[in-house]
Amino acid sequence: MQRILSTDLIRHLGETVTVAGWIHRRRLLKSVGFLVLRDAAGFTQVVADPAGLRELAEESVVEVTGTATGSEQAPGGVELTGPSIRVLSAVSVPLPLELHRPALTATLPTQLDHAALALRHPARTAALRVSAAATAGFRAALDRQRFVEIHTPKIVASATESGANVFRLDYFGRPGYLAQSPQFYKQLMVGVFERVYEVGPVFRAEPHDTARHLAEYTSLDAELGFIRDHRDVMAVLTSVLSVMAEAVAPYASLAVPAEIPSVAFPEALRIAGAPDDEPDLAPAHERAVGEWARREHGSEFVYVTGYPMAKRPFYTHPDPADPRYSNGFDLLFRGVELVTGGQRLHRYDDYAAALGGDLTPYAGYLDGFRYGMPPHGGFAIGLERFVARLLRAANVREVTAFPRDLHRIAP
Amino acid sequence: MQRILSTDLIRHLGETVTVAGWIHRRRLLKSVGFLVLRDAAGFTQVVADPAGLRELAEESVVEVTGTATGSEQAPGGVELTGPSIRVLSAVSVPLPLELHRPALTATLPTQLDHAALALRHPARTAALRVSAAATAGFRAALDRQRFVEIHTPKIVASATESGANVFRLDYFGRPGYLAQSPQFYKQLMVGVFERVYEVGPVFRAEPHDTARHLAEYTSLDAELGFIRDHRDVMAVLTSVLSVMAEAVAPYASLAVPAEIPSVAFPEALRIAGAPDDEPDLAPAHERAVGEWARREHGSEFVYVTGYPMAKRPFYTHPDPADPRYSNGFDLLFRGVELVTGGQRLHRYDDYAAALGGDLTPYAGYLDGFRYGMPPHGGFAIGLERFVARLLRAANVREVTAFPRDLHRIAP
Repeated sequence: MQRILSTDLIRHLGETVTVAGWIHRRRLLKSVGFLVLRDAAGFTQVVADPAGLRELAEESVVEVTGTATGSEQAPGGVELTGPSIRVLSAVSVPLPLELHRPALTATLPTQLDHAALALRHPARTAALRVSAAATAGFRAALDRQRFVEIHTPKIVASATESGANVFRLDYFGRPGYLAQSPQFYKQLMVGVFERVYEVGPVFRAEPHDTARHLAEYTSLDAELGFIRDHRDVMAVLTSVLSVMAEAVAPYASLAVPAEIPSVAFPEALRIAGAPDDEPDLAPAHERAVGEWARREHGSEFVYVTGYPMAKRPFYTHPDPADPRYSNGFDLLFRGVELVTGGQRLHRYDDYAAALGGDLTPYAGYLDGFRYGMPPHGGFAIGLERFVARLLRAANVREVTAFPRDLHRIAP
Repeated sequence: MQRILSTDLIRHLGETVTVAGWIHRRRLLKSVGFLVLRDAAGFTQVVADPAGLRELAEESVVEVTGTATGSEQAPGGVELTGPSIRVLSAVSVPLPLELHRPALTATLPTQLDHAALALRHPARTAALRVSAAATAGFRAALDRQRFVEIHTPKIVASATESGANVFRLDYFGRPGYLAQSPQFYKQLMVGVFERVYEVGPVFRAEPHDTARHLAEYTSLDAELGFIRDHRDVMAVLTSVLSVMAEAVAPYASLAVPAEIPSVAFPEALRIAGAPDDEPDLAPAHERAVGEWARREHGSEFVYVTGYPMAKRPFYTHPDPADPRYSNGFDLLFRGVELVTGGQRLHRYDDYAAALGGDLTPYAGYLDGFRYGMPPHGGFAIGLERFVARLLRAANVREVTAFPRDLHRIAP
């Protein structure tokens, strides 16, 4: 008999149907037993003689055929009665953590050690669904604006982007590195498609063991050509965020203003009460600016524009009106940096001047600028950080299926 | 003035408009000069006094304001006359290859060395658009069938999947490896979502220097639970391929039969005239089976099912009727293997028996099966191979933006 999902049961009242899933919870009373069966869509309550359920450990996978019977007590108003149960996969060992409570009570390390099991908890599952929905929203927003999806290499020849925090590997006997971002490649691809995006892993040999750093995470990258300056990039980012907010709406509420408030860097320092010669915003300053945006504009988002050039990467375009400052921006979400972006240099001579010295390690990258590149810019959203802040998770690892960090490389 | 795209020019006949792009071609006659401007949408012909065009090298990026004028000779029936030209980015060096001929005449190594330039050629660009469209089709087909997109780690703790051809890296002073596929993780995620897919890079330290091997490529992976056997996996794959065919239809024609012909492995050997004790299909055998499918069924695709267990990976589910054979399949496309898939083992004891010996390196993986997993299976499509065969490219590198192989790690 064709299996149906738990959420379809209500449409089959009185019929004999088959459901299948994991035994989420087993309760045996004296004269009656209950199974709560979990499938991809939800839960089904199965009522049976307790004797027949004694051997069925939680998380065993079973197929249950029975009668869909209306019941006020059952979840969804329907339960399965008179069941015959076929075991597809029996669990014969104690579970290292309990899945049937509303919240996972196991410590985070225990959850991560037993990810294959812990991720089945509805709270962990929901976070990964948010992740998938946010990614789909990111792509849908950019597809509509004629961006083209690209796939760029994660193995690269030199640790050129920042030099630090890079993983080194043995590439057929030569040194190779894992890309810290698709930055160089997405810029080159602006020369091909004008507008590109990539969803892919990035790698940071991050020596800090914090609640928000991962050694590998998913980066949502976009880059576009023929811009006036960084404000065109911000407009695209705002529109992308609003489609991402729609996409995650079934799981979490997120209000993205049509016009996200924006403050220039010196003004951000003033709002935060910071000395006016600070070259960057400290976390406390970001919180103050976030608080200001909420108070003054009712917005959970705020752009800070025109960071000093001193703290931005070499490919950053200076502000033509005052070259000490950049055409770069950060987007703060609830008082923490979520996105970094900006206008990039686009002329070969500007790159040669910004880099100085031996340009050989940058040859393949600089080729793009040598052969004509329009004014362009872009941004990158860290997917796990976005989801963690959206769901107010205390640790980014709670929303990551199999996190990688200083101490963890498995499972 | 707001820039318009080349394809919109025809809607502005008689108006003053601005276009922008790369100088694809410059032709200077005695009394008149022509620029062919390339943008993301197509080409614009610009007619001007030849004197004003002399300094404008090909691939320079320019913004041109002029009058949209009907012209029978011009591409799209319209050209830009009376132009004023602003240079956004000037090219001052000779180009290492010519982009304006219908086919790229530069050798493949020259194209790959200068990828930032060569990829701008319309033939190379089209292949990458096919790649993007095929990927979107893959996702759309699976989204409709309630698959959930996942992101799994590319840095893994052990070289467990096959042992050979794996890249080794320094992970905070410990050994780490690049994942050869998301196989283990997508299986574990069947325990979470029942149906999952991933689009991501996979890494093979492939020592063969051939026209179809890459050291890094994009894998389109899917895995689904609660299957009867491998035939359910094949049904999903067939439906996915038909949506991918629709998605690439603007670029290339691909007929996917509603029912792809299928032959059992021993029958495939007979069709190929191979000895009946061969454990696998050699390339010549695959060609023969492909030829048979075209001749007998008018199909460019053919499934070969039930490969001998001896040649399939340890997680392969045997055929219950004859355990020498597997519930695994290959899909041949135009006589070459395109997809490998099948049903997997789903019980812990079966894994313990199949692996034997010390199970410690597999602990995180086997956890999933220890705690209940339904019958499941899946498949993986190599994106670049799919595009190369679809477009009948002689070398998979022709359809890969920045290929990685035994000899190449840059750009």
